[in-house]
Amino acid sequence: MSNDRLIYLPLGGAGEIGMNAYVYGYGPAGKERLILVDIGVAFPDMETTPGVDLIFADVSWLVKNKKRLEAVFITHAHEDHVGAIGHLYERLGAPVIHTRAFTANIARGKLAEYGVGDHAVTTASVWPATTKAGPFTVGFLPISHSIPESSALVIDTPQGRIIHTGDFKLDLNPLVGEAFDEELWREVSKPGVKALICDSTNIFSPNPGRSESEVGPEVQTLIAEAKGMLVATTFASNVARVRTLAEAGERAGRSICLMGRAMRRMVEASLETGVLTRFPKVVSTEEAREIPRENLMLIVTGSQGERRAASAQLARGKFHGMQMQEGDTFLFSSKTIPGNEKGVIAIMNAFSEQGVDVIDDSNGRYHVSGHANRPDLEKMQDVVNPQMVIPMHGEHRHLREHAKMTLAKGRAAVVCVNGMMLDLSGNQPKVAEYIESGRTYLDGSVQIGAMDGIVRDRIRMALNGHVTVTFVLDEQDEPLGEPWCDLMGLPETGRSKSPLTDVLEQDLSQFIGRADAKTLMNDAKLEEALRRVVRNTSQDEIGKKPEVTVVISRLSA
Amino acid sequence: MSNDRLIYLPLGGAGEIGMNAYVYGYGPAGKERLILVDIGVAFPDMETTPGVDLIFADVSWLVKNKKRLEAVFITHAHEDHVGAIGHLYERLGAPVIHTRAFTANIARGKLAEYGVGDHAVTTASVWPATTKAGPFTVGFLPISHSIPESSALVIDTPQGRIIHTGDFKLDLNPLVGEAFDEELWREVSKPGVKALICDSTNIFSPNPGRSESEVGPEVQTLIAEAKGMLVATTFASNVARVRTLAEAGERAGRSICLMGRAMRRMVEASLETGVLTRFPKVVSTEEAREIPRENLMLIVTGSQGERRAASAQLARGKFHGMQMQEGDTFLFSSKTIPGNEKGVIAIMNAFSEQGVDVIDDSNGRYHVSGHANRPDLEKMQDVVNPQMVIPMHGEHRHLREHAKMTLAKGRAAVVCVNGMMLDLSGNQPKVAEYIESGRTYLDGSVQIGAMDGIVRDRIRMALNGHVTVTFVLDEQDEPLGEPWCDLMGLPETGRSKSPLTDVLEQDLSQFIGRADAKTLMNDAKLEEALRRVVRNTSQDEIGKKPEVTVVISRLSA
Repeated sequence: MSNDRLIYLPLGGAGEIGMNAYVYGYGPAGKERLILVDIGVAFPDMETTPGVDLIFADVSWLVKNKKRLEAVFITHAHEDHVGAIGHLYERLGAPVIHTRAFTANIARGKLAEYGVGDHAVTTASVWPATTKAGPFTVGFLPISHSIPESSALVIDTPQGRIIHTGDFKLDLNPLVGEAFDEELWREVSKPGVKALICDSTNIFSPNPGRSESEVGPEVQTLIAEAKGMLVATTFASNVARVRTLAEAGERAGRSICLMGRAMRRMVEASLETGVLTRFPKVVSTEEAREIPRENLMLIVTGSQGERRAASAQLARGKFHGMQMQEGDTFLFSSKTIPGNEKGVIAIMNAFSEQGVDVIDDSNGRYHVSGHANRPDLEKMQDVVNPQMVIPMHGEHRHLREHAKMTLAKGRAAVVCVNGMMLDLSGNQPKVAEYIESGRTYLDGSVQIGAMDGIVRDRIRMALNGHVTVTFVLDEQDEPLGEPWCDLMGLPETGRSKSPLTDVLEQDLSQFIGRADAKTLMNDAKLEEALRRVVRNTSQDEIGKKPEVTVVISRLSA
Repeated sequence: MSNDRLIYLPLGGAGEIGMNAYVYGYGPAGKERLILVDIGVAFPDMETTPGVDLIFADVSWLVKNKKRLEAVFITHAHEDHVGAIGHLYERLGAPVIHTRAFTANIARGKLAEYGVGDHAVTTASVWPATTKAGPFTVGFLPISHSIPESSALVIDTPQGRIIHTGDFKLDLNPLVGEAFDEELWREVSKPGVKALICDSTNIFSPNPGRSESEVGPEVQTLIAEAKGMLVATTFASNVARVRTLAEAGERAGRSICLMGRAMRRMVEASLETGVLTRFPKVVSTEEAREIPRENLMLIVTGSQGERRAASAQLARGKFHGMQMQEGDTFLFSSKTIPGNEKGVIAIMNAFSEQGVDVIDDSNGRYHVSGHANRPDLEKMQDVVNPQMVIPMHGEHRHLREHAKMTLAKGRAAVVCVNGMMLDLSGNQPKVAEYIESGRTYLDGSVQIGAMDGIVRDRIRMALNGHVTVTFVLDEQDEPLGEPWCDLMGLPETGRSKSPLTDVLEQDLSQFIGRADAKTLMNDAKLEEALRRVVRNTSQDEIGKKPEVTVVISRLSA
């Protein structure tokens, strides 16, 4: 019997929606040859990651084992699947990257920012074409989603076939890209599928998903009734939606103007790669400014309330010479991702102040999801008929519910989260090992670890404010003047109505006056003592304990 | 003709949902005698108000005019209506406070924290009882909401009757407290109502609101099926819901344990004031620990994911000796207020990791709103038949939509936001003046202004990190040693792989070495120059510009 095993190891995406990174391996334990499926980002927030630019899966394990990495396969071009490719390419040992043309176009753009040439990405053809990668043979099996050329991966291993769905929905008329082809999927599954590694995003949505083609008629009706300028936002990567919006505008006799870099980039990539063969004529913002507003439609970025995107800019006032006004209409052809509500609502209120009618998706007319709902996930299992299902692309609650649903259907399933290495060799998935997993932050231009304490310190300063205490002594440990304080993010006065700085400096001076030589000699002791004075006095004066930096300066002659 | 005018001035609550504070006045312009309706809080978030404890309306205008303030009337005991009463009582000149018994109980608790005695609050009887307050005669008109004894105010003025709805829904069977009594409302409105100042929260909800009584049967069915321990959370102030949950548990043979201070406080206040005459027997947490989990039901605080509340504590592990486990059920009998999604979802996932089944309100079975939906708001107008409607208790988009709906019904309406003083004397509301309005933060024990820059500085430190530069010179402006740096919230190394502190100190030293005497003499100039060095070098090394505190110390002999 062979000693080889087939492993599955999520490093990101299993326990959150975002930063997808899934490893498959085959070979002797600890010497498996590896492939990586997707390498995406997650987005920071002020609550947990202030100042951070992007979040990736911690790929330290993969970096340590980069010599075993045969290739990277990217299922589709959403940021949470491809967004980290540029940032991590070198650390991963410049692996071969396989993906389809549209995704390749986007991935090459990201690699170019790091000076990596186009050759790094190999453009893949779809199934039945396949690519060898060590012990694996991998094929791209088209599936509908909310971005062009999304693909499942058919991963043939010495121990059988695996299907990794990527993100998907079962759309028979997705408008752009391939429809869900049930016959093809049945055919691919016929030889028997060992494991289905499956999207879990919409496991809690009880009704079958709706087709992208349902949005168009609703948008057309809306546009026909709009009086002033019409502005619509959606996810820029949903090229089908962007075209639906643009075509509805065109049909209503409006000129179309795309605003926001991502919006133009995605349409460009679609045209360059032949994903789109037709897109309504667009006008530049310069041209748009000359067009009567009732004849104009803007399609803009920023459906999630992002501060720098076009919709937020328009909410704040003029953007590239365009400005909303009373009688205009703004359409969110999108849903708000949990966590983004406040930003989106702020934009809605800003438009309301401008007299703009804001229409969102609360009635379900102007947006459909890109993910399979519960009945669609059941159908997928029925079509593929896998031996086991490993839920992925979900928070823990999604994975758990998806596993429960699978077990209820009489199939093997397990909740597998980031860092949990499964051995898929047998008839049941088994936990093989736990790998240290986590998050890496892109902070400015530097990659830092989530557990480094850097962001924790920033959060503390945000919550508590900051005091710098400076104290100078001479060579004989004699104070040269009094300690003094610089405050940041703290009230000027507190309980005693005297300036907080003065109160702190008085208490520090008193402490120094009483301090013995032993304390004054010892930097660590002195620092701790001065910090304690500041924190206690502050608690008393203003009811909070600030972060304190103590700078002790010992002068030598 | 009289020179007197009737004014309405929202200081909070008109342009947001939260920190309600509405002023009415009557008399000669600038000399109106005033009453204040409600004095609530809003809640801070990490995004905009890190470290802040509570937010109130900026009542500076009212403080300046406190001699004109006849009384404060509180419509109901929700925090956004009564929460600031203790914090602002003295600043407002210790005004007379009128409210109904249950709200009075809560208000007195808040005042007691500031050492104010119970006499400060006068308990009001309901309509037809009234209270004189300067030129006003005010009556409490019961209306259903999601807390006991919510009341509209009937404000009789020399220029006619005003009805201020407070928060409300049209519930014919609210289980606790008075049902909406259409006959009574018609009778009160019969003499003619000049202005209806009306809740706008649910203007975007298209269907008639549902009764509190619809929740009970659903919860009973759920509890009947639950196997392990059952834990339910809801808004503690929704006493009817808390009792519904407790009764459903009792009926299923479970012992009831209330966890979380607010939960116990609200039930206590209800029993003390006779709002509740019956509540199932509750057990203490000590007793609960001895009861088999399948016979136990906890009702806990923290439906909004608040970090310190009982539900979050249970999500993190043991709380008062209680711990969730596989097979238990957790019910959110609540909706998630926009902005709280991440916190709530984090709790759901933590429970999922514990093997707990989490049930939320996504199917609409286990929660009903406390606010009137669009058809209910229309019905309210039909019943009251006011001359004009002033939407309140809403973000701008709610106020605007509510005003549009009113205008479409042929009534006068205006979008009136915080700081906009309306003259209601004529047949149409007219803008009289704009008053400076805004927000006050309770930060630890200190009240600070939202525009003071204190919180802005904290946000900057959270986004950018902080560097302290210390530099000592002697009396002759000669440097005593090199400048040095202390970093907080910044990566240790950047582009050059050397410690960032070292790189910064080298560049600072170089700068000092080249600096002329004029720069070294001038504190402001030197400080600015050192700050610039730090920011530029950091940008180069780590791709971000930190906040910088420069401490220049000039020693004298």
